[in-house]
Amino acid sequence: MAPKGFRAAGIACGIKKDGSKDLALIVSEVPARVAGLFTQNRVKAAPVLYTRKRIRRGVARALLANSGCANACTGSRGIEDVRRSVEATSRTLGIPREDILVASTGVIGEPLPVERIEEALPRLSQLLSPQGFKDAASAIMTTDTVPKLAERTLMVRGKEISLLGMAKGAGMIRPRLATMLAFLFTDLEVPPPLLRELLLEGNSRSFARITVDGETSTNDTVLLFANGASGVSLREGIVPFRDLLFEVMEELALGIVRDAEGRTKVVRITVRGARTSRDASKIAFRIATSPLVKTALFGQDPNWGRVMAALGDAGVAVAPDLVQIRINDLPVVKGGTQDPKYDEEKVSASLKGKEISIVVDLHLGEGSYWVWSTDLSYDYVRINASYRS
Amino acid sequence: MAPKGFRAAGIACGIKKDGSKDLALIVSEVPARVAGLFTQNRVKAAPVLYTRKRIRRGVARALLANSGCANACTGSRGIEDVRRSVEATSRTLGIPREDILVASTGVIGEPLPVERIEEALPRLSQLLSPQGFKDAASAIMTTDTVPKLAERTLMVRGKEISLLGMAKGAGMIRPRLATMLAFLFTDLEVPPPLLRELLLEGNSRSFARITVDGETSTNDTVLLFANGASGVSLREGIVPFRDLLFEVMEELALGIVRDAEGRTKVVRITVRGARTSRDASKIAFRIATSPLVKTALFGQDPNWGRVMAALGDAGVAVAPDLVQIRINDLPVVKGGTQDPKYDEEKVSASLKGKEISIVVDLHLGEGSYWVWSTDLSYDYVRINASYRS
Repeated sequence: MAPKGFRAAGIACGIKKDGSKDLALIVSEVPARVAGLFTQNRVKAAPVLYTRKRIRRGVARALLANSGCANACTGSRGIEDVRRSVEATSRTLGIPREDILVASTGVIGEPLPVERIEEALPRLSQLLSPQGFKDAASAIMTTDTVPKLAERTLMVRGKEISLLGMAKGAGMIRPRLATMLAFLFTDLEVPPPLLRELLLEGNSRSFARITVDGETSTNDTVLLFANGASGVSLREGIVPFRDLLFEVMEELALGIVRDAEGRTKVVRITVRGARTSRDASKIAFRIATSPLVKTALFGQDPNWGRVMAALGDAGVAVAPDLVQIRINDLPVVKGGTQDPKYDEEKVSASLKGKEISIVVDLHLGEGSYWVWSTDLSYDYVRINASYRS
Repeated sequence: MAPKGFRAAGIACGIKKDGSKDLALIVSEVPARVAGLFTQNRVKAAPVLYTRKRIRRGVARALLANSGCANACTGSRGIEDVRRSVEATSRTLGIPREDILVASTGVIGEPLPVERIEEALPRLSQLLSPQGFKDAASAIMTTDTVPKLAERTLMVRGKEISLLGMAKGAGMIRPRLATMLAFLFTDLEVPPPLLRELLLEGNSRSFARITVDGETSTNDTVLLFANGASGVSLREGIVPFRDLLFEVMEELALGIVRDAEGRTKVVRITVRGARTSRDASKIAFRIATSPLVKTALFGQDPNWGRVMAALGDAGVAVAPDLVQIRINDLPVVKGGTQDPKYDEEKVSASLKGKEISIVVDLHLGEGSYWVWSTDLSYDYVRINASYRS
């Protein structure tokens, strides 16, 4: 069930050439508290530059998001196009411009066809409804094959609060703060500093831990809206909203990995026993982005030597002779070399599954980290060799 | 023509399953000066650990190199196997053990079939000849499709000096000091400190500038032998050996990129106008290892937005609005957005060629750097999904 006081819609306005949905609008009846995280890429899209600035107020009422065009590397025209779409949204909804946030995803470097957005807005706003979130989630898809939505409801003192999140992303995924587009809406009232804190913590456990290809987008945006329409405030006492939020964010992040471009495997890589969790994170991401590890996973080949080569190449001091590796909980490497208990047939057979676990223990300390990743397949190459055409 | 006083041979001794050449031996009649560079991966193969130590003497007479097995992640057995092959080489050639260096390349984690090497050595040593370098270069190939050899001769005061180099490498290429295997032999006499200096400088202009997949191997080794057999010493005056050496190293490095796994393009990426050359190098390598840039190149798609996204993601401060990009010397990006003179058809057509040039100007300073790279094709995935089987 949609969070109270929020309505959404998604339609095709002609940005995408294939005529599929490409414009989403989500509106809160009352001003909502909002917190956001944005890409750390130094090249930032116009909507990121705009929304990052607007969000400092901590309050917003509407979010306009499009796919099919990233509005990135579009210079002053890109910023002007954002202003025009905000202006049109403001006119259509009859709400102040400063209450409107924007996000875009798609091809970099092409101008936003802002006339089509202006034209479509009246029709889009008429479709706004509590049932419109699925359409909105579809309208932010690019190479995604399924819309990614996650919902939870909770009873607190006889009142229902709910949380709904949506995300898109299938390639160019290697967030260092946020990833691609993810929007979260709740009718709980959450005081602003806490809202940002919760979003940051949730992000560090979800979107910050996924990678498809090691690429950080120019457009990554994560937004959390809280409009208080449930009549319940987080201040009132113990509402287990934290768990709810983290669950939804993890579900969406994992949804992105599951729908990653060309993936045949979802791989969880855990690094334990590092000196620090920062070291563990560096090594986990180094393994997760290694083309040789990823192609071996695609080939269902237990080529553990490539995991060893990758972990030695993370810019972190390791003691190769102490390294232990388990794949799908089967012994593979011990003391830096093949585990005497290694059974190649068994490990090979386990790699035919779709969910793979690789656990590396460095035996140097207490630092640990895990990430979700994918394999590297023909289809990733096919999709990205022909994405624009 | 082979450098005087050096002989080489390469045979199949049964390490590779397909029966192709896998064992190379190169011997100098007299002790040669030698300098070496080794992988910076923290996980180092047994032959790297061994040779790195031995080379401190600055003198060697023989090099035994095998393909088909990296002898990496093989624990104490790996070191013992190196000792046994050195011992066997010493017996066969009748030269002291400390004059023998080793190198290996191939699958990580499998033990070296040292008995086959011991058995093959008498036969291998009988084949040693000044004409044997091509066989030796073939015997160090893994997924390489052609042996990589480069030769130069020079007349100095009526005496001929010559330089011959060989290299292998087709994947797991992203050297941070050395790359894969590259061996250089000259009959010039070069004093040891200068030998190392020349090797370092040559490396920084050749092997240090190439990448296929961003992977640094456990076995990378570059060795330069100088035995003085030409009767000419670098001390005697101005011998343009520096240029000779750099030419040969560049030719070999480019040979590795040209023969890269699955590549359909060779791409030279130049970054200019950076604050420092270190910044330029970070950005050049970030672009060169971007899967999205590489798949676009494979698809012959002038998707310049991916170059912008990659250069913004190198951990280096840039001013997006100042960025200029030229592809194959055609204008593409100016002031961070599409150059008004951009002609998509022209750029597209130029991408059908096999040699691509991307020049990025950051307009921030005087730092510049260039690297050689490749595209990312179906064949890279195919080769690496099935390499071991």
